[in-house]
Amino acid sequence: MIIESIQSPADVKRLTLEEMQELAVEMRTLLIEKVSRHGGHCGPNLGMVEATIAMHYVFDSPKDKIVFDISHQSYPHKMLTGRAEAFLKAAHYDDVSGYSEPTESEHDHFVIGHTSTSVSLAGGLAKGRDLRGEAGNVIAVIGDGSLSGGEALEGLDWAAELGTNFIIVVNDNQMSIAENHGGLYQNLAALRRSNGTCSNNLFCAMGLDYLYVDKGNQLEALIAAFKKVKDIDHPIVVHINTLKGKGYEKAETDKERFHWSAPFNIATGELLHPVTVETYDELTASHLLDVMKKDKTVCAITAGTPGIWNWTPERRQAAGKQFVDVGIAEEHAVALASGIAKAGGKPVFGVCSSFIQRAYDQLSQDLCINDNPATILVLWGSLTTMTDVTHLCHFDIPLLANIPNLVYLAPTNREEYLVMLDWSLAYKEHPVAIRVPVGATVPATRPVQTDYSELNRYEVVERGKDVTILGLGNFFALGEQVHRLLQAQGIQATLVNPRYISGIDTELLDNLAADHRLVVTLEDGALEGGFGEKIARHYGPTAVKTHCYGARKTFVDRYSPQDFLAANRLVDTMIAEDVVRLLG
Amino acid sequence: MIIESIQSPADVKRLTLEEMQELAVEMRTLLIEKVSRHGGHCGPNLGMVEATIAMHYVFDSPKDKIVFDISHQSYPHKMLTGRAEAFLKAAHYDDVSGYSEPTESEHDHFVIGHTSTSVSLAGGLAKGRDLRGEAGNVIAVIGDGSLSGGEALEGLDWAAELGTNFIIVVNDNQMSIAENHGGLYQNLAALRRSNGTCSNNLFCAMGLDYLYVDKGNQLEALIAAFKKVKDIDHPIVVHINTLKGKGYEKAETDKERFHWSAPFNIATGELLHPVTVETYDELTASHLLDVMKKDKTVCAITAGTPGIWNWTPERRQAAGKQFVDVGIAEEHAVALASGIAKAGGKPVFGVCSSFIQRAYDQLSQDLCINDNPATILVLWGSLTTMTDVTHLCHFDIPLLANIPNLVYLAPTNREEYLVMLDWSLAYKEHPVAIRVPVGATVPATRPVQTDYSELNRYEVVERGKDVTILGLGNFFALGEQVHRLLQAQGIQATLVNPRYISGIDTELLDNLAADHRLVVTLEDGALEGGFGEKIARHYGPTAVKTHCYGARKTFVDRYSPQDFLAANRLVDTMIAEDVVRLLG
Repeated sequence: MIIESIQSPADVKRLTLEEMQELAVEMRTLLIEKVSRHGGHCGPNLGMVEATIAMHYVFDSPKDKIVFDISHQSYPHKMLTGRAEAFLKAAHYDDVSGYSEPTESEHDHFVIGHTSTSVSLAGGLAKGRDLRGEAGNVIAVIGDGSLSGGEALEGLDWAAELGTNFIIVVNDNQMSIAENHGGLYQNLAALRRSNGTCSNNLFCAMGLDYLYVDKGNQLEALIAAFKKVKDIDHPIVVHINTLKGKGYEKAETDKERFHWSAPFNIATGELLHPVTVETYDELTASHLLDVMKKDKTVCAITAGTPGIWNWTPERRQAAGKQFVDVGIAEEHAVALASGIAKAGGKPVFGVCSSFIQRAYDQLSQDLCINDNPATILVLWGSLTTMTDVTHLCHFDIPLLANIPNLVYLAPTNREEYLVMLDWSLAYKEHPVAIRVPVGATVPATRPVQTDYSELNRYEVVERGKDVTILGLGNFFALGEQVHRLLQAQGIQATLVNPRYISGIDTELLDNLAADHRLVVTLEDGALEGGFGEKIARHYGPTAVKTHCYGARKTFVDRYSPQDFLAANRLVDTMIAEDVVRLLG
Repeated sequence: MIIESIQSPADVKRLTLEEMQELAVEMRTLLIEKVSRHGGHCGPNLGMVEATIAMHYVFDSPKDKIVFDISHQSYPHKMLTGRAEAFLKAAHYDDVSGYSEPTESEHDHFVIGHTSTSVSLAGGLAKGRDLRGEAGNVIAVIGDGSLSGGEALEGLDWAAELGTNFIIVVNDNQMSIAENHGGLYQNLAALRRSNGTCSNNLFCAMGLDYLYVDKGNQLEALIAAFKKVKDIDHPIVVHINTLKGKGYEKAETDKERFHWSAPFNIATGELLHPVTVETYDELTASHLLDVMKKDKTVCAITAGTPGIWNWTPERRQAAGKQFVDVGIAEEHAVALASGIAKAGGKPVFGVCSSFIQRAYDQLSQDLCINDNPATILVLWGSLTTMTDVTHLCHFDIPLLANIPNLVYLAPTNREEYLVMLDWSLAYKEHPVAIRVPVGATVPATRPVQTDYSELNRYEVVERGKDVTILGLGNFFALGEQVHRLLQAQGIQATLVNPRYISGIDTELLDNLAADHRLVVTLEDGALEGGFGEKIARHYGPTAVKTHCYGARKTFVDRYSPQDFLAANRLVDTMIAEDVVRLLG
């Protein structure tokens, strides 16, 4: 295979057009094979094979620097920059991450996994080059789906004033993760229809030069275009029209399903290990759709990620105008929710823990200062869900729980979650965020309170003495385990379900101080700035000792959740051991 | 005066054109008078007098809902909606806030003080209206300067798909706070030159309908335009060309100086109480300009607010390409800084505490995961700087100090600050943020360390026993006071300058535990998620008691800093009293 001879981009430059075409076929085969066996981003990579070959044929990486937005289309680049082995041999699949990674290669310049950042980051490389008086091309590659994000639009607007070399390749595959939403996509469509010549042009309106390549999966056209812009003395957008999923028929047909996939059967497209249990994501979408049918003012909002909470195309259609996909635009989503709530509607913004980070100021200013009663569902918040460093779901508690006015709830089971969700829709005093439990649903084993209006009242599940265990949300189950282990050693601990992440039940805590010497907090997230520290501060001036369990401050990457939990002593036996020691 | 007869917008509708013209003159006179005596936003309000009269003449507020971006142009609206008294009589000046405020009037729908939010918030009102099957116009008013913000661009892109009534008034006064930056401003200029007819149109490229009003300070033209779009059945942009500062010659001439002003002499334009001491803002700009002359890779970055750190037009010119104003675009600014640092440049992003909130995800993902050595200067971070609820500078510590890899420093005096700033420019291991002290510079009274590479080493300024005072940054001086008060009572406290907000000096803290029973933390910011809680958590499992001082969790508005500090027991005598009590 030709791919086996490619050690670096220099080897690409030596190929004939025919060899490059053959290389493209090989790369697609390997991509489909790896993703089908390992899981990963499928459609975006398949669409970018020719463009990546062409870029490396024309430009001189790493002197010329290519920055891939969100990295969903960066696998072909990895294949051509000394990392083909990780696609050729199953045993080496995990040698590379699914994202740009400077520690893997000098051809990668940033770790990137959130959208809409490439223009700004690459813009920084260009500006840095100019400050240092250096030369070279800087190329940002950004998908059409990422263009709706504020950071990308800020970056494009800024780029126009740079005045020196900067090439922005817009990979237009006519899809975000799901279908695109937003007016700018009408403009991209008009540009495609007119071969880049229609009178309104978003990029030109932002002050940028522009070049259109209709055949974005044809090497000759791409090479010609990149040659034309190489060493250009000002910023330019190269808009290439590509086919998402190209070369794998099922991915070409069902683009949303094959944007990313867990391992699947190539022939049938079916998942090798389909989810057979009810998950909280599934429960959320199915429950909300029921609620919507009865209440036409309920409106679910997603920022380009309907799939992460199981809003399938069928459900979206059934919800009609009560489901809003704003595109990749978390800031807008939060402000929109605030406005809908102010107008008397009932918005529910569902968003992954890692992505709610993109809207802190909107949570604080647009939502919480205004105290509008929107519901935010924080999905996958946990130390054990996403293990890529760019997708960590560790930080939502420090981020949300310290914002005044926001009620942040942590349900511990299926029924408690549904009751909290329904309550949040009726509640009018404050915005409510709910940290949706992760994984398969767990049924309640005790009665569930229906009204949470009296804020910051913790639930005492077992009243003991000496030591209290505050088991927050996902880690209530861990608390139960610790409670059981201590019981076996003759220690009758008090077990509490705090329910409220964002506030302290001072009355309960002060009462417990009477016959408890130690309070242990368990939270499924980062320790710093989190829930446990509030408890530690509260008890600080007293004789009650505290010990907070959670993740120490670190950006961890591609870790084993089990090992990570153990390294943080987030294991029932370790915690029980610590408690016994601390009780002396 | 006509203005005295205006109790609500209904009274505007009864006026003749001539009376409205007279009203505009009266309003300008009152605006100039109030702002010159009280301080406030000058230029943006003067430019919007006619447009505001015209909107209230044509639309039916509050059934029709008008949302003002950032509220810098909302004073005329306040005058016409029952709040004229607050502009007529000096004794009533403080009856209204400087921002939209629903508690003041049913004609205000949100508290708004950060930029670029109006399209999204008003979009939510429109969507809520539709969900509830209601009627009425929704109008977002946004200035050209706010358009560069990602949230605004996300909102515009989304609006195109709403499909129902939504009017976006773009108040184009050809200025941000300072001059505009970004490619889209070339397009606005082209639209103005062509009377709205040029071939590339940013708004149309985003899928929106469009109407241009060249005479944006002429009532007839504005009334005609608003009548044309009233009750429109789809979203439209009404682009009005206005004159910033209109009616006050000095504001028309020096638009940046009179965007906002402290009290000034109307005849001369000079400040009534000019700053005569050296402030940290002044020190920063003057020092950086010196550094830039010697090192051409140093680059100062602002997101549309050069004035807040005294980057005057003269200094900007002197810095040339080493000063970058990205426009209102904090997200881009942080990512740009990361890219510049990656390329070997030395970026310094100076940003107000309240506005760094707008870039959390960029700090985390673009900067800190990549661990690029950019410098972030957080300005005005304190409980005592900005007292409007939308501009609180209380939350930067919880926001920044919990991000892995970021070194967040808190200098306590002039020399320490400069040394830390210079050190950060040379340091290559991690990004560094510095919480710039506030107010007038204070000289060092003790030697200052020059190297901060050994992270999280606190400075013991006085070694005592029993009680330790950790006086962070601005509150080190408070710690000194408390130390003095305790000394007078025979208590020899240990006084520590922590220097590092983002990490704990575990070795020192553990050593202090030997002969200290109490550790007190003082931080000039919000308590929750902050510095003190880290200390409380560290000592939680030990016998050492802790007491954290800072601001309790709340959104406080237009408060007296002195009263607020006292309400939080942030007063030397109160703290000393508590310490004596806690030591028992």
